[in-house]
Amino acid sequence: MADFKQQALRYHAEPTPGKISIEISKPAETVTDLALAYSPGVAEPVREIAADLDNVYKYTAKGNLVAVISNGTAILGLGNLGPMASKPVMEGKALLFKRFANIDSIDIEVTHRSTEEFINTVANIADTFGGINLEDIKAPECFEIEKELIKRCKIPVFHDDQHGTAIVTAAGMLNALEIQGKDIRQAIIVCMGAGAAAIACMELLIKCGAQREHIYMLDTKGVIHTRRNDLNQYKQLFANNTDKRTLEDALTGADVFVGVSGPDVLPPEALQLMAEKPVIFACSNPDPEIKPELAHAARNDIIMATGRSDYPNQVNNVLCFPFIFRGALDVRASVINDEMKLAAVHAIRAIAKEPVPQEVLTAAKVGELSFGSSYIIPKPMDPRLLPRVARAVAEAAVASGVAKLNVPDGYYAR
Amino acid sequence: MADFKQQALRYHAEPTPGKISIEISKPAETVTDLALAYSPGVAEPVREIAADLDNVYKYTAKGNLVAVISNGTAILGLGNLGPMASKPVMEGKALLFKRFANIDSIDIEVTHRSTEEFINTVANIADTFGGINLEDIKAPECFEIEKELIKRCKIPVFHDDQHGTAIVTAAGMLNALEIQGKDIRQAIIVCMGAGAAAIACMELLIKCGAQREHIYMLDTKGVIHTRRNDLNQYKQLFANNTDKRTLEDALTGADVFVGVSGPDVLPPEALQLMAEKPVIFACSNPDPEIKPELAHAARNDIIMATGRSDYPNQVNNVLCFPFIFRGALDVRASVINDEMKLAAVHAIRAIAKEPVPQEVLTAAKVGELSFGSSYIIPKPMDPRLLPRVARAVAEAAVASGVAKLNVPDGYYAR
Repeated sequence: MADFKQQALRYHAEPTPGKISIEISKPAETVTDLALAYSPGVAEPVREIAADLDNVYKYTAKGNLVAVISNGTAILGLGNLGPMASKPVMEGKALLFKRFANIDSIDIEVTHRSTEEFINTVANIADTFGGINLEDIKAPECFEIEKELIKRCKIPVFHDDQHGTAIVTAAGMLNALEIQGKDIRQAIIVCMGAGAAAIACMELLIKCGAQREHIYMLDTKGVIHTRRNDLNQYKQLFANNTDKRTLEDALTGADVFVGVSGPDVLPPEALQLMAEKPVIFACSNPDPEIKPELAHAARNDIIMATGRSDYPNQVNNVLCFPFIFRGALDVRASVINDEMKLAAVHAIRAIAKEPVPQEVLTAAKVGELSFGSSYIIPKPMDPRLLPRVARAVAEAAVASGVAKLNVPDGYYAR
Repeated sequence: MADFKQQALRYHAEPTPGKISIEISKPAETVTDLALAYSPGVAEPVREIAADLDNVYKYTAKGNLVAVISNGTAILGLGNLGPMASKPVMEGKALLFKRFANIDSIDIEVTHRSTEEFINTVANIADTFGGINLEDIKAPECFEIEKELIKRCKIPVFHDDQHGTAIVTAAGMLNALEIQGKDIRQAIIVCMGAGAAAIACMELLIKCGAQREHIYMLDTKGVIHTRRNDLNQYKQLFANNTDKRTLEDALTGADVFVGVSGPDVLPPEALQLMAEKPVIFACSNPDPEIKPELAHAARNDIIMATGRSDYPNQVNNVLCFPFIFRGALDVRASVINDEMKLAAVHAIRAIAKEPVPQEVLTAAKVGELSFGSSYIIPKPMDPRLLPRVARAVAEAAVASGVAKLNVPDGYYAR
């Protein structure tokens, strides 16, 4: 572990600090090259854009450029460590955008005194980019920030900690319920955690058919119910008219446990309270709400997912965000709407049900890779994700009327 | 000309839009690579930076990253065309930073309702970068913007239209005066134009020895003098206690003409009013204040410079900005101060006096390249600029106490 720590620090420091760079994408060696790239040639695209703003997509890098923006108030599971400490994570996200979907991505860390100032700052620089990925911003501010920015920006704004997590969770959950022979419309769902990811996951599961009154959400004070008077407006939406108060109350008879909280909060013996064939998503990272070996030892009829790559069924946002942006950028969607999110859910689900390409089998270190309790969602390295998810998202954008361009013929063939 | 226009548009549009991209600078292929770059490895540099903010330079790209920031209010000579129309220019500047000094540079276009809002927006994102290059922002707002941002940011903030122009102009001017046998302390200087570049050029010439009372600055209403009551605070500093009112008045007996205004405003016959062996810098681009062929036809004792690459003595900001930032970044200077600017002036001057490397002779298309009236400043492609100017700037930063790091041994050897 000390060795991995040193390796991670060395990776970030050597031979040059960081892990992304900015490169020239056109010839820039000769005097002639530079006359085209800068003075006097650059005046021509300037005039074309001044005449028609749409030309900015034709002559600049905007259309393939996503900003990864944070204020560092909720970095990974580490908490509010400030904008500078978030920079390695944001650069890492930019790296993943490039690696998985060939999207040019740059991190922006924002210092601010108020939520309003954060919103203004991001809105004022938004036109620079083709899309904005918000990251590691704490709840409940992240909800207002995203809502306002979607309203004010002409480009897609997407808080990945909410929607990326929700989309991958929903894809895995729908597959797990199918395998367990359960219908999401009847499923009793316990959600441990009431932060950004938890709320977004539950909202998306509801859009996938879950009943709001079947959901028991718990924060640090226990079950969120209608007689509590300490709830913000976002938790309020999940206030259940129930007598259940504790995790054990909520788990009794439940079909699903979704953990987006902290390590080891789900005792193995509590699993016995749940209904037959339950689904356990213990997504706290790096330490899940319950260790898979303990869960499987407690019951043998469960399907279990975590956020970790060293167990089967990893709920990993990288299954979604590069591709949802790829699809959105390619048809110049003005937003990432529910139709696009649901299209991503179903595209990811479908991939898990099909035979796995040889390269994925080789790269995968754990578990079986045929659709079943140990393989409910695709692996991050699956090359089918890019074409399939991007295409589904692009088509949904066009069908729902938020795209500026049509889905090109043969898309996604590259 | 139509052909060049098409070529410039094609250059910007094909095969992909724009001319910069973001690339991955570390291994990112395997599951292991990604575990170091993102989860769980990225938590290690996060913790190190949270413990000591200085580590952000060790583990992220910040230290070599310069933002090129504009609001598009004064794009090239084309005017206020808005932030989007400025994007090709800002991307071009980013390209030049990389091409000439291996600096990673990204453009940011800012939309705003007030100068204060522009300043707040840039200050709020400043920590993302190692330096900020302001560009194409109109006067007089640019002065307040730069001053406030220098105050609020912990990194160098440099408005290139002011200081880059001033540094290259001063380098060429000091060499031209030396060749003409004139002393800058006695020189009578006419400055046509009273915008950002004009004011910065005159302020820097004063720091090089020029006398403020020897300077006659003209705006669209003629000579700026003490009895005018229409002057902003920046022009006020150049109000001359004089009876001169017209360009002709000012030129009578003058040693130097600096044009940072518009095309063809200096009539050839007016040159006859100037003192012996005058120096004419006609820097309006693309069309100078007087065409060199007309100026040389009018008098044969002049030294003439323009902003154009197709005449001798091109005053080109690219001689300075990549290298002044290279030097500043390499010793982690907190500002770019006067000492560093003057060090750049003298380093650029000195290069012009030395024999030219063969590669520069081959690339140069016009003029002689030995120190004299047709060669007062280096060519943009001169490979000596990077090591010499960067070193001089870095040393000046250290000597003036604004650098965090020492000049490394053997710098600039790479």
